[in-house]
Amino acid sequence: MFNAFCKKPLWECARALADVAHGRRPADVVVKGARLVNVCTAEVQDGADVAIAEGRIAYVGHADQCIGPDTQVVDARGCYIAPGFLDGHVHAESSMVGAGEFARAVVPHGTTGIYWDPHEVCNVLGLEGVRAMLEDARRTPLKAMVTTPSCVPAVPGFEDTGAVIGPEDIAETMAWDTVVGLGEMMNFVGVVNGAEQPHAEMAETLKAGKVVTGHYASPDVDRGLNAYVASGVRCCRESTRAEEALAKMRLGLYTQLRFSSAGRDLPQLAAAVTSGAVDTRFACLVTDDVHPHELVEDGHMDRVLREAVRCGIDPVTAVQMVTINTAQCFQMDHELGSIAPGKCADIVFLEDLRDFRVLRVMIDGVVVAEEGVPTFRLEAFAYPEWAVRSVHVRGEVTPASFTVPLPDDVQARDGRVTVRAIEVAPGSISTKEAHVEVEVRDGAIQADPAHDVLKAFVFERHRATGQVGCGFVRGFGIQRGAMASTVAHDAHNLFVVGTNDEDMALAANALIACGGGQVVMADGEVLALVELPIAGIMADVAAEEASCAVHELERAWHELGCAIPAPFMTMAFIPLARLPELCLTDRGLVDCTTFRFAPLLVGE
Amino acid sequence: MFNAFCKKPLWECARALADVAHGRRPADVVVKGARLVNVCTAEVQDGADVAIAEGRIAYVGHADQCIGPDTQVVDARGCYIAPGFLDGHVHAESSMVGAGEFARAVVPHGTTGIYWDPHEVCNVLGLEGVRAMLEDARRTPLKAMVTTPSCVPAVPGFEDTGAVIGPEDIAETMAWDTVVGLGEMMNFVGVVNGAEQPHAEMAETLKAGKVVTGHYASPDVDRGLNAYVASGVRCCRESTRAEEALAKMRLGLYTQLRFSSAGRDLPQLAAAVTSGAVDTRFACLVTDDVHPHELVEDGHMDRVLREAVRCGIDPVTAVQMVTINTAQCFQMDHELGSIAPGKCADIVFLEDLRDFRVLRVMIDGVVVAEEGVPTFRLEAFAYPEWAVRSVHVRGEVTPASFTVPLPDDVQARDGRVTVRAIEVAPGSISTKEAHVEVEVRDGAIQADPAHDVLKAFVFERHRATGQVGCGFVRGFGIQRGAMASTVAHDAHNLFVVGTNDEDMALAANALIACGGGQVVMADGEVLALVELPIAGIMADVAAEEASCAVHELERAWHELGCAIPAPFMTMAFIPLARLPELCLTDRGLVDCTTFRFAPLLVGE
Repeated sequence: MFNAFCKKPLWECARALADVAHGRRPADVVVKGARLVNVCTAEVQDGADVAIAEGRIAYVGHADQCIGPDTQVVDARGCYIAPGFLDGHVHAESSMVGAGEFARAVVPHGTTGIYWDPHEVCNVLGLEGVRAMLEDARRTPLKAMVTTPSCVPAVPGFEDTGAVIGPEDIAETMAWDTVVGLGEMMNFVGVVNGAEQPHAEMAETLKAGKVVTGHYASPDVDRGLNAYVASGVRCCRESTRAEEALAKMRLGLYTQLRFSSAGRDLPQLAAAVTSGAVDTRFACLVTDDVHPHELVEDGHMDRVLREAVRCGIDPVTAVQMVTINTAQCFQMDHELGSIAPGKCADIVFLEDLRDFRVLRVMIDGVVVAEEGVPTFRLEAFAYPEWAVRSVHVRGEVTPASFTVPLPDDVQARDGRVTVRAIEVAPGSISTKEAHVEVEVRDGAIQADPAHDVLKAFVFERHRATGQVGCGFVRGFGIQRGAMASTVAHDAHNLFVVGTNDEDMALAANALIACGGGQVVMADGEVLALVELPIAGIMADVAAEEASCAVHELERAWHELGCAIPAPFMTMAFIPLARLPELCLTDRGLVDCTTFRFAPLLVGE
Repeated sequence: MFNAFCKKPLWECARALADVAHGRRPADVVVKGARLVNVCTAEVQDGADVAIAEGRIAYVGHADQCIGPDTQVVDARGCYIAPGFLDGHVHAESSMVGAGEFARAVVPHGTTGIYWDPHEVCNVLGLEGVRAMLEDARRTPLKAMVTTPSCVPAVPGFEDTGAVIGPEDIAETMAWDTVVGLGEMMNFVGVVNGAEQPHAEMAETLKAGKVVTGHYASPDVDRGLNAYVASGVRCCRESTRAEEALAKMRLGLYTQLRFSSAGRDLPQLAAAVTSGAVDTRFACLVTDDVHPHELVEDGHMDRVLREAVRCGIDPVTAVQMVTINTAQCFQMDHELGSIAPGKCADIVFLEDLRDFRVLRVMIDGVVVAEEGVPTFRLEAFAYPEWAVRSVHVRGEVTPASFTVPLPDDVQARDGRVTVRAIEVAPGSISTKEAHVEVEVRDGAIQADPAHDVLKAFVFERHRATGQVGCGFVRGFGIQRGAMASTVAHDAHNLFVVGTNDEDMALAANALIACGGGQVVMADGEVLALVELPIAGIMADVAAEEASCAVHELERAWHELGCAIPAPFMTMAFIPLARLPELCLTDRGLVDCTTFRFAPLLVGE
């Protein structure tokens, strides 16, 4: 039952801990005189010492008896200490760096453990990719606890991914010492309707005594939600209203209030825990996805705590929501989530409980960050060749590849046709279906940049099958140039949007050449390029560097006339058939409300 | 990972539950219109329906869609429903009936699950005895979840028991589907001092991913308590002051506030949870030991709840303390402890949240008690011959067996000597050491009933070794007759106390003849006899009948001049070397503060 996340199992060091607590043996480390955020009783205890040995907490109180000549004494007077922050649901890949670099970026912000659903990398590279990421993460002190991706592909039958995960894969990974559960079961419709595959995946997880994590994104908090919870799902990070969050807590579902780059739900949800009228043990805080520039500039779990308190959540309650509540959700509270004897010595030193400025971070009793800087060394990780050469498009991509032919049986009227266009909105990852009239020239349907109608193409890029989907998007507001991205949820195929076929071809080829990334191209020139060679979705540089590159990218978009914040993010979600209303995959346009392919031409 | 306590594992019925929740399949049972005690959010929700299928909860809300022609609809308007009560720590044997009868007695009081440390039967019959008890329990709907006894014998080297439990036995039982953890680790001194055997037992439990339950009975809530908790103990039912209880909660130790027949600690402890200043998730309520007459007359967990509310604990908080908190303590909250989708349909129907009168009890969706009466049939259980013939004393017990010879090297002074006597006090299970002068006649030390000094003898009765310990007791206040008991903690040897050797011999022989029990004898006549043939500590009759017999026994004690309430209980704890101050085992007098044998004669 031991997992990979503690320095030593308790049963191998319990006697040593008893010796230290009792003063018969000196501690390795003693933290002196802190204001202890006690998440067990929701109190702040002044003047607390913590004695540590073998990576675990041996004693909490006045620890003079634990100090020997070789004991490292850490003065904590004037600051708060809290249990290491746990992110109850995160896709580390969204921060666009490798797992080791992700750890290096989040640990200084107090994050000592993550419940990580690596479904982005898994869509591209399968379980082998997850293993490679874990190898990378394992070099760092961060406790990277995996929930095996459950929905790969996200919407079977509507897209082509680099891997397919089924119940046998789930069963296999449940034996990994790094796996603590099943990744977010996005196919909530299937679960609610009793579909075989999702239930089989959940069954394998439950049989292994592990936790099924959830994603229930329907406003129906009655029958549908009950059916979902009754199926064995233990937590859910998909709520948009406080009433939804409260309904979930009432059904004993751990309710993860999200504050992510793409979904800033926390302010809308905070009322579920600020009323003072309910027990908040079923509420947690999670990040889900954090883009590299936000990670670098705003932080990680410390930022979520700051936001929680700003939303009126009691600071100690907020700390419980990233420590003991999360540990209890995963039934790992005997190891993690509190500063108490026997637990892993994962401790965050804080300036206060409002800004949550992190002064120092300890994992397994070792200081791993000081004043925002990691103290552990991390060499670049050599991802294997198959992981960094993952863009495989069939044939050559040329301007001609971006022709949208008018079907033989369709007649243009006055040289024009009406097409279904995907309409994007600033700051949203959902889309609308728009009907727009565009020109037909030489038997091909044209873009109309003057009216903000751009061509969009998705090229299958995992097995070079030659599968291509095409359509139109509206709302980006660019007048010239083209953009391409291999970050294109969740299949991460090669997605190209543009005003003209030449720039589109150049953009596509730029990414094919560098192994994936995001690019902005205009008039035959690269305006900005973010190289993401790891699985085509992550950079092999530090988060700070990735953040700069992403800034450059955004600047380039804006230079072309786009006014949307983080437009590459909006673009990256267009292929995700899990989001309403209309999406484009390598197999074509998908109506995401009915889950049917949609014809490009209206009236067809 | 499935345990023996649910009708069906969730993964085998999740799809059926989803069907029911969604209204595609009728429920087996629908509870209509209840006031739901929601222990997840600590709220009372009015007008709640609960739909049940496959023994589990499928839906909570307005369940009309779940009702089909064959659905059993249970009208719950006007009453409260709460999750089935869990007793977080109990020795069922203390109720002096077999496990099946115990279930029959407690289930109508709302107790649907017990965390049972069967260390009484284990001291007599070993793990085979535990297995037999489990066979008996398994015939009932009560969820009898075992924690394997850790301290058998209670004080090694000072007493002879019928069995000895070591780390290998612990390891073996951790594979049983009925075992959820390790029984109360009473050897807290050994744990704190890093002794090998208790740590080895705990290690086997932790390796199996199960829970170590505790018994920390020292006022040292600093170093000793920290050492104990750091060793991996998860709960403790041994607190006598609110500050102790709070100190334990602060260290993340589940703190079990006890209200037992022998230890009514709850009123002294309630302040730990009534302040409103602390999170109470680490507080639970337990019974520990309930004597049969109290069980029959006052109830079980319903009685503890009543007492908790009387002590000022908020009723919903109190219900949490016997449901979700206990389930979380044992990391079984995914199965038990809340009325939420997916959980076992263990539901108590209550008249109110003050008197906690139990109207109806449901386990796994089946009504198992109505208005205090079990609705399940239970035939007498045939315990095997070795279990009901467990009293094996060497040779014949005669009046001469009760001679206390003056040692050859001791001279009486004026025909008198000073002995160490065990002084008992009303309503206490602890003793004091008294020094009293008694007469020596014909080379033998005499009792002195006129001054309330009685002889006391403990005969080894498991393997007929002939080991006998003798001493004197003071404080029972009887003038004539004798008492014997094979309920004599924890070794349960044959314990005899009396004013004269003839009645003592008759009392001993009465119990040898009937396979064990408790008897009061005077002037050669049996005044009262409680036959306890199962392991010599439990009756093979219903709890009501056992209760009557125990009443008769008490009446007989009082007839002989004893004024102590439940004196047979006071007597039964005299051989327990775990309690201060002086005790008598089959090996002799033990000083329980220093753990040394004590000479009978003072100054020797």
